[in-house]
Amino acid sequence: MKIGIVGLGLIGGSLAIDWHPHHRIIGVSRSAETIRQALEAGIIEDGGASLALLSGCEVIFICTPIDHVLSAIEALAAVVPTGTVLSDVASVKGAIVPAAEALWPTFVGGHPMAGSAAQGLAAAQARLFVGRPYVFTPTAATPKAALEVVAGLVGQLGARIYYCAAAEHDRAVARISHLPVFVSAALLANLEASGDALAAELASSGFFDTSRVGGGNPQLGTAMAAWNREALLAELHRYREQLAFFEQQIALGEWQALEQSLQRCQQVRRQIFAPPPATGDSG
Amino acid sequence: MKIGIVGLGLIGGSLAIDWHPHHRIIGVSRSAETIRQALEAGIIEDGGASLALLSGCEVIFICTPIDHVLSAIEALAAVVPTGTVLSDVASVKGAIVPAAEALWPTFVGGHPMAGSAAQGLAAAQARLFVGRPYVFTPTAATPKAALEVVAGLVGQLGARIYYCAAAEHDRAVARISHLPVFVSAALLANLEASGDALAAELASSGFFDTSRVGGGNPQLGTAMAAWNREALLAELHRYREQLAFFEQQIALGEWQALEQSLQRCQQVRRQIFAPPPATGDSG
Repeated sequence: MKIGIVGLGLIGGSLAIDWHPHHRIIGVSRSAETIRQALEAGIIEDGGASLALLSGCEVIFICTPIDHVLSAIEALAAVVPTGTVLSDVASVKGAIVPAAEALWPTFVGGHPMAGSAAQGLAAAQARLFVGRPYVFTPTAATPKAALEVVAGLVGQLGARIYYCAAAEHDRAVARISHLPVFVSAALLANLEASGDALAAELASSGFFDTSRVGGGNPQLGTAMAAWNREALLAELHRYREQLAFFEQQIALGEWQALEQSLQRCQQVRRQIFAPPPATGDSG
Repeated sequence: MKIGIVGLGLIGGSLAIDWHPHHRIIGVSRSAETIRQALEAGIIEDGGASLALLSGCEVIFICTPIDHVLSAIEALAAVVPTGTVLSDVASVKGAIVPAAEALWPTFVGGHPMAGSAAQGLAAAQARLFVGRPYVFTPTAATPKAALEVVAGLVGQLGARIYYCAAAEHDRAVARISHLPVFVSAALLANLEASGDALAAELASSGFFDTSRVGGGNPQLGTAMAAWNREALLAELHRYREQLAFFEQQIALGEWQALEQSLQRCQQVRRQIFAPPPATGDSG
């Protein structure tokens, strides 16, 4: 199959690495250096800065930052033939899918839950998606054949494929990916506001882990909030109530009830991460 | 020097491992099996279940769970001669130090910021304290000679020694150790309350790290809250205000301000963890 990839970063580059032995990959990037490196690595057959290079592709994966997905679809609509399958990899779907479908009927919303803290083509790696979730959010308007094409390709990556509504996806990632960013960032903001130099000196592996995602890419954190705003605000509200519940147990000295609450938390985490955790991270 | 250690778990056992080549170590544990293993490993010279075994020790480290520190001091007071130096390793100091001093004048409050998720003598390891913070909280009543004895021994461990007031210590650990436990646990409680099976399936390394300390030992989390209640409640209050600030920025769509907030968080974390983080964790 002839596959186009727009954006050869961590995700786009990793897709190219896994697919290029079996397919013809054409890459598009605004960076000439990225194209040069992808050609040199042999993971794309051809590439450049122009979307017109993708006019002969049967399926095109848009692997740009969230903010550029819709403009990329709009630009592609002017240069690729009707029926070309387009799919994205953005970590939010509700704000993308209906708009994308209005621009291009053969669109399939997707989100691979894989990645790392690193960025760019240099961070791309083979077998990044093996055993990782890959979520599709088809609608009633999604052509069955288009969904089958992208699901077939993603199946070759060894990913675990899930199908759900965009809103269902967005609620789930708000809970386990976007909310933790702000919960974690608030720990850092609280420490900074305290001006407590001793606390900064004493911070150990517990604080290191719990503050990791909050100390991550500020642009990505902001994009998550901007594009998944409603679901994130709902989770922040529910989260605050949970925290207030613990706070009340502590204020009232209800130690037995608090220990039972923490026991449930321990069980929940053991259920979720029963097998060894994957090293990948959600974009 | 003849050193007594009450409680041969992760901390007490690791102290014995590092000190036994240079000192005579007497261990006390309620578990006969633990004493047998410590004798077999050669890290104690003698040991048993009775505190009377420690009557000839110049300094005794109490390495029990927080809840047993004061009762251990009370029991030791009946069997060791006046002037014996007692020190503890509990992760809270304000609720321990004044009461301990009232029971025994030659007492020095201490807290090694080292450990791991594992427990018991089997988790004890050599060089656990190297490069890690070890905080002492002497008061105006602490005999200088007693402080010098324990600081000298801790210096041999390779730890970084800090001196501060008990309240200052408790505020710092509330910020970087106790608060994160409940912030992290509330993420798990929020996920459980949602009943969202898809979210649990999609949880990746970001959720894994951020939920780690909240899914830890429920007894330890409860003890932290019970013994450092005032400082923890103050931090929970400040933390909620920080989180509400982010929530407001998101609700109002102040994306530039939000990105700046997240940039500061990123900088704060880089400042704290500039060198590679230690693998140890705070008890």
